[in-house]
Amino acid sequence: MNQKKLLLLSSSRVGDTAYLAHNREWIKRTVGDAPLLFIPYAGVGMTHAEYTSKVRDALASVSIEVKGIEEYDAAAAAVSDAKAIAVGGGNTFQLLKLIYENDLIAPLRAAVLKGTPYVGWSAGSNIAGKTIKTTNDMPIVEPPSFDALNLVNLQMNPHYTDYHPPGFNGETRDDRLNEFIALNPTETVLGLPEGTGLELRAGELLWHGSDRPVLIDNTGKHTQHDLQRLAALIG
Amino acid sequence: MNQKKLLLLSSSRVGDTAYLAHNREWIKRTVGDAPLLFIPYAGVGMTHAEYTSKVRDALASVSIEVKGIEEYDAAAAAVSDAKAIAVGGGNTFQLLKLIYENDLIAPLRAAVLKGTPYVGWSAGSNIAGKTIKTTNDMPIVEPPSFDALNLVNLQMNPHYTDYHPPGFNGETRDDRLNEFIALNPTETVLGLPEGTGLELRAGELLWHGSDRPVLIDNTGKHTQHDLQRLAALIG
Repeated sequence: MNQKKLLLLSSSRVGDTAYLAHNREWIKRTVGDAPLLFIPYAGVGMTHAEYTSKVRDALASVSIEVKGIEEYDAAAAAVSDAKAIAVGGGNTFQLLKLIYENDLIAPLRAAVLKGTPYVGWSAGSNIAGKTIKTTNDMPIVEPPSFDALNLVNLQMNPHYTDYHPPGFNGETRDDRLNEFIALNPTETVLGLPEGTGLELRAGELLWHGSDRPVLIDNTGKHTQHDLQRLAALIG
Repeated sequence: MNQKKLLLLSSSRVGDTAYLAHNREWIKRTVGDAPLLFIPYAGVGMTHAEYTSKVRDALASVSIEVKGIEEYDAAAAAVSDAKAIAVGGGNTFQLLKLIYENDLIAPLRAAVLKGTPYVGWSAGSNIAGKTIKTTNDMPIVEPPSFDALNLVNLQMNPHYTDYHPPGFNGETRDDRLNEFIALNPTETVLGLPEGTGLELRAGELLWHGSDRPVLIDNTGKHTQHDLQRLAALIG
């Protein structure tokens, strides 16, 4: 764990800010001056090149050089050789399906374990958890497995909210996550409120954003005003 | 298709009505005087017996005799011998997982094809479609496949709504279903607004509820003021 450099972000936007505006400085701090390999597989309704171009534009102001994995002939080698990696949001099922199709599970894990910085937002944070069983996305395609990168010993729930619209009869997010816990009682879910992010750097755990992290397990829901419990879980 | 007797309901409640209150007369019309085999596999956070008991209580006023599949030693034989079948709501992934674990895909299809009435609501309607790729539920467990009962040549989306909360930045239901269509352009999604239901009876198609059915395919979104297009799709 001491080698891992992770930045797991809830979302690409918060409120009506511009794309990646609220977190580009956090991304810069994680990536530094390294060129960034971007994985646009979660995108639906745009080409991979278009998605990469959008991220390149958003990170130009912090002088991060972005190259899309679609520009390489060999995706696995691109991951192994990368100096920093980012995985963007979109549909988590589509993302994980293409990661399996391109045989990137093992290369991504190996890269992170040797210390290559990994930045994810939304779906890109979901797959950093053990499985994608706590994604908010619709299962529009079928990946070969729900098992994900397992970079942290948690289930990730980006865009976490406990908002309950007046008159709403449906399930809240907490209802859904509690159902996950009912069927998976040994797991812990980390809820990342919009605009927040978890950073791991050489064994140190940092939290970005004003809302606090939320942990949900079989003892209930715990808002983390200090990070000790979360740090202990991650190991 | 001519033998099929299906009642595919959006939801167990509408507004603040009691459980199955708005649709129990429709269910009675489909089931008639037959004893009803109930499949409670979608339930989470209650036992199967508890779920069956809740449905039994809700249908007592229309004189439907309910027996839960958990009361039988052999689930597949219970399905094959049933005079009418109902599958309740809950979590679609858990439902489909237990249907596979109990080897019920083929028996359920065979029962419907020979004319056994099938009633589903929410998750029970989702699995009547080709796959569960248009469920609204969180993927809290992993079924062996997303392929479902394929009782109608459609993808089902119960609890369909095009509501867009003011100030909401997230994906609407239409956004999600359009992403499904982007990746599955030959499919058609049937959106069942809350409080509605599709009934098929010996080749005749009926619609229950005041909101109209919605079809979404690669030509766009079509509210069905008459049922001809829907009838043609179902065959």
